[in-house]
Amino acid sequence: MLIREATEADWPAVWPFFRRIVASGETYPYPLDLGEEEGRGWWLLPAPDRTVVAVDDEGGAVLGSAKMNCNMSRAGNARHVASASFMVDPDHSGRGVGRALCEYVIAWARESGFRAIQFNAVVETNVRAVKLYESLGFRIVGTVPEGFRHPAHGLVGVHMMHLAL
Amino acid sequence: MLIREATEADWPAVWPFFRRIVASGETYPYPLDLGEEEGRGWWLLPAPDRTVVAVDDEGGAVLGSAKMNCNMSRAGNARHVASASFMVDPDHSGRGVGRALCEYVIAWARESGFRAIQFNAVVETNVRAVKLYESLGFRIVGTVPEGFRHPAHGLVGVHMMHLAL
Repeated sequence: MLIREATEADWPAVWPFFRRIVASGETYPYPLDLGEEEGRGWWLLPAPDRTVVAVDDEGGAVLGSAKMNCNMSRAGNARHVASASFMVDPDHSGRGVGRALCEYVIAWARESGFRAIQFNAVVETNVRAVKLYESLGFRIVGTVPEGFRHPAHGLVGVHMMHLAL
Repeated sequence: MLIREATEADWPAVWPFFRRIVASGETYPYPLDLGEEEGRGWWLLPAPDRTVVAVDDEGGAVLGSAKMNCNMSRAGNARHVASASFMVDPDHSGRGVGRALCEYVIAWARESGFRAIQFNAVVETNVRAVKLYESLGFRIVGTVPEGFRHPAHGLVGVHMMHLAL
């Protein structure tokens, strides 16, 4: 698996699984009917923020994507904290794509001089993501009760997770 | 004190204390040198989000301002959570302006059908704000360690605060 910079040319390969994940309404607070153009603007970030894709070594298929950015305004007094979001094609889950992307983000944040990474909204029923982040050293610093309306589980908590670098 | 809808015409009265608060770098993660036009765009929110000003009954001076909004995307599965920000002219502190604005926001959120209000980043050294919010029923659900670089105190924690409605 190769992780490389995402370009506009990658979007047609990202959008189908991005849309599927957003439309499921299980993990992201985005509008469930988010349009393709709007989604592209939300996901493909201009420098110095970054968006990458994880690509299959052999066929070149896009397996997942991550965006990484300063958590709050770049010139403010919280500029030492990074954030990131991840989308892994459900058809390629269980292959370590999410872990590889998250490790990439941690390395990027460290190299970029951030002192921490903060995930602002990890839905507590997204157990696989919570466990992955914890296995990489993140911890839950707080949980907003009933912060997310899961389509199957109803109102569930939303974790804020944090990793000091 | 009257609390009413803020208009573009109020901005020249808001900007001086807004700028002073932002430039102090003690409570907001905004760029310390935020420009007037950019600040206006960040503060005066279009409907259905709202921005109000607290105005002196007698002289009509603007004493403070609050903006209130959906915490995340309005059409997503976290749309039942509101958020808000407050600016009180330091020259008029201690008069209950912040409390009146916060009470207004709570009433607005309740009437608008939100189920909770979440403040994402309350700097822990902003003790007056923390105590005010707690006195109105908010509680700290988590604290990001060293999430903010205070100009005098160095790296300090950032609270996420929450009120169920």
